[in-house]
Amino acid sequence: MEIVSRVNDLKTLVRQAKQAGKSVGFVPTMGYLHEGHLTLMRQAKSENGIVVASIFVNPLQFGPSEDYATYPRDFERDSKLASTAGVDILFAPEVAQMYPRGVENMLTMVEVRRLSERLCGKARPGHFQGVATVVCKLFNLVEPDAAYFGQKDAQQVVVIKRMVEDLNMNLRIVAVPIVRESDGLARSSRNVYLDAKERQAALVLYESLMLAREKLTGGLRDAAQIIKLMNELINKQPLAKIDYISISDSETLDELVVVDRPALIALAVRIGKTRLIDNVLWEG
Amino acid sequence: MEIVSRVNDLKTLVRQAKQAGKSVGFVPTMGYLHEGHLTLMRQAKSENGIVVASIFVNPLQFGPSEDYATYPRDFERDSKLASTAGVDILFAPEVAQMYPRGVENMLTMVEVRRLSERLCGKARPGHFQGVATVVCKLFNLVEPDAAYFGQKDAQQVVVIKRMVEDLNMNLRIVAVPIVRESDGLARSSRNVYLDAKERQAALVLYESLMLAREKLTGGLRDAAQIIKLMNELINKQPLAKIDYISISDSETLDELVVVDRPALIALAVRIGKTRLIDNVLWEG
Repeated sequence: MEIVSRVNDLKTLVRQAKQAGKSVGFVPTMGYLHEGHLTLMRQAKSENGIVVASIFVNPLQFGPSEDYATYPRDFERDSKLASTAGVDILFAPEVAQMYPRGVENMLTMVEVRRLSERLCGKARPGHFQGVATVVCKLFNLVEPDAAYFGQKDAQQVVVIKRMVEDLNMNLRIVAVPIVRESDGLARSSRNVYLDAKERQAALVLYESLMLAREKLTGGLRDAAQIIKLMNELINKQPLAKIDYISISDSETLDELVVVDRPALIALAVRIGKTRLIDNVLWEG
Repeated sequence: MEIVSRVNDLKTLVRQAKQAGKSVGFVPTMGYLHEGHLTLMRQAKSENGIVVASIFVNPLQFGPSEDYATYPRDFERDSKLASTAGVDILFAPEVAQMYPRGVENMLTMVEVRRLSERLCGKARPGHFQGVATVVCKLFNLVEPDAAYFGQKDAQQVVVIKRMVEDLNMNLRIVAVPIVRESDGLARSSRNVYLDAKERQAALVLYESLMLAREKLTGGLRDAAQIIKLMNELINKQPLAKIDYISISDSETLDELVVVDRPALIALAVRIGKTRLIDNVLWEG
């Protein structure tokens, strides 16, 4: 595995691989890799000639009161894990490589309207604009045949897929199912913030999603009713504070009244100071 | 010259040329071609293996009270001219090819902040967002080595260059000097709107720019003074109504108080109902 921190070195290596006729799979990450990321990398490897992964904690997608400064980082561990998962080129740029004029002078922003304002977008204004913009930059740097994203960030997948379609970008977006701990907690770099009690309390996210799925399987179609039941379950957990619970059209993210089509059941919950998200897709 | 109206046909033809090892020059236009466009095409031809030109009157960059519906169109004449100027592939899509979900469902927008809000951006809110977005789409469709823009739309050149830099797009932007009529009027598709009296009155744009250049050459450096002299000259012309006169840093478009660096002297003036723009670069 080659590790590069400079844009020009990345481009040179990717060009060489392409000239050798290899297809390129790309896995953009913010590092602090877990089994979810490694699953993306292994799938990318199985479907492409080479895999490029990036580790970049993107300041543009964090709000002023969010955890940009404290977001967990461990490059040495990450690079070993990435190598084992089959990554060929690991791109780990400094902020100045990605924003050479400074973040405040990054004038061009890519915005996927409507889709960016819903669900997590309400509590995190500007977040998906920051995501779309950095992903657009990374796509232009790597020019991959396919890029792999975890379904855990369901709204991110919807936003990126729509950006690629709207802007005629030349790649496939592959969404990979959520990887969970054995007790159901979705893998997340932010799980490291949880102490033992919070770790236990965090199970309530998945439990509420399972409750929703059970009710849907049982024939309940009234979204407000399902959300009410999820609310009640989560509110029994004193460490949990609900940010949102949403049942929406899985492509448009329009809130559903009746669950009569493929739906995204998604929620964000604060466990102590840590904001966690999770979701399930209901195919109907 | 091949004429294509479908995105997929365009991509197939471009791919064939690239596989044959040819570099691609691209000239995006809104059609109703004049000598300015043809100069771009000829320059693109001299510097590349093939030239792709597009003709697309982009609804996204017109305001509700602007001339989208009446913008002049003459595809037959355009295709003859483009062919003569050396264009190999002429892409002339319908709106539904560029915005398959409809213009109102085009959710992804590319915005170059600050630069888009100045000069023409004040009178045309959303205009440069529409320009940047469609140009980004066209760049992704054509994947050119270089794209050619007329310096007549000076702010557009600044916006597009910055978008390419900020988003790490893989092409060169070439700005080509303004082509003028023998009496100095900048070539523009909108000149067709002018009747004989207005055509004569329209000379005042270039005359005022020449006055500014003369004063700069003579050593005057006070931007407000120069603008005042331009104002006075234009206001003598009863058919002319000034939208703006600006002397700005030619890269940042920051208004200058003292002309102590390369400057863009630009103006927009209504002649009757027709809004015309023109500019000169002062290299200092």
